[in-house]
Amino acid sequence: MSRKQYISPAIIHRLPRYYRYLSIIEKEGISKISSKDLADIMGLTSSQIRQDLNSFGGFGQQGYGYNISELKNEISSIIGLNNHFKAIIIGVGNLGKSVANYMDKAENGFEIVACFDKSDDLVGTGLLNLKVQSINNLVNFCTENRIDSAILCIPSEEAKQTVKALYDIGIKSFCNFSSYDISLDYRDIQVENIHLRDSLMSLCYKIADERI
Amino acid sequence: MSRKQYISPAIIHRLPRYYRYLSIIEKEGISKISSKDLADIMGLTSSQIRQDLNSFGGFGQQGYGYNISELKNEISSIIGLNNHFKAIIIGVGNLGKSVANYMDKAENGFEIVACFDKSDDLVGTGLLNLKVQSINNLVNFCTENRIDSAILCIPSEEAKQTVKALYDIGIKSFCNFSSYDISLDYRDIQVENIHLRDSLMSLCYKIADERI
Repeated sequence: MSRKQYISPAIIHRLPRYYRYLSIIEKEGISKISSKDLADIMGLTSSQIRQDLNSFGGFGQQGYGYNISELKNEISSIIGLNNHFKAIIIGVGNLGKSVANYMDKAENGFEIVACFDKSDDLVGTGLLNLKVQSINNLVNFCTENRIDSAILCIPSEEAKQTVKALYDIGIKSFCNFSSYDISLDYRDIQVENIHLRDSLMSLCYKIADERI
Repeated sequence: MSRKQYISPAIIHRLPRYYRYLSIIEKEGISKISSKDLADIMGLTSSQIRQDLNSFGGFGQQGYGYNISELKNEISSIIGLNNHFKAIIIGVGNLGKSVANYMDKAENGFEIVACFDKSDDLVGTGLLNLKVQSINNLVNFCTENRIDSAILCIPSEEAKQTVKALYDIGIKSFCNFSSYDISLDYRDIQVENIHLRDSLMSLCYKIADERI
């Protein structure tokens, strides 16, 4: 597949879903699937699937369906999973630890190369095969090593200061678990927000709505 | 505000964002805001904001802007934040612990009433003001107590079995951190998925895309 000029955010967010569903289907030993069957499984329409894949120059032959492992590999290459981007984890409390352990196991395009915390109790302890560094080393480390992305597992106020320090030395990609909204202050960044409270509130709405 | 018949999933997902931004603006001591200014801050258009709020019967007077704290309270009541739905946490490893601590602090519409784990090392330990229970008690506990939602902080395979057991006794609302896609197997449920790998992959795509 070749990449066309503009890919909408909605399609970008569907790519990991394609990858996830194709992995499930592949594990079940299925080697081929029609756009209709894939659409049914994913809760999409077959025309939407064809349109999505056409954004990347199309894939599959009309009437023959998609070869699962080929499509999965193509999507992996579109996402850029083989890049092994270098990421750091900031904050290694319970959340940071669980994120580190998760990222160590599952293919996701990133490799954790360092982790930082402000707590003296945690600095020097081990996480994965790394030693937790003091947050005071953060800027120095990131100046001396090429870092592609920072994963923020710290509260909102600390996240704000940390993003400023990292942005000032050229780091513009963040996976953000805090409720600080980075894109309010910076426009030229890449960010994925995991706002747990937003998800809980959406769920709360759905439950409340059903009981009306 | 009164609720009209159908509210689109996109609006439902924007409600917590409204609440979050209004909280930030309120903290800055601002008491009134025009739909244009709110739109600029949130990266939306003013017509979209008016449309969203019109879904709930409208709010604010043309030309006078919105009263921040009134609008925030209305949105809180639309989301149903005062319901204090009863939730349980399943899996109290690092992830479950961080979710429990987070939920204990931030207003989100839920109250944690029990937590469960399969590990003998964790059963009987304390989390918040609760004692971690054995996963073997899960079905009994949920049969005897009214539970509104289960928060799944366990791996995909365990999540699948657990959802089945809970669904069979009538629990149909889940906050899901595992990569198991509950809506593949059940259609009549409410679920919010927090698929960390999907977020990482989207971020990976964005970084790779910028470097082409």
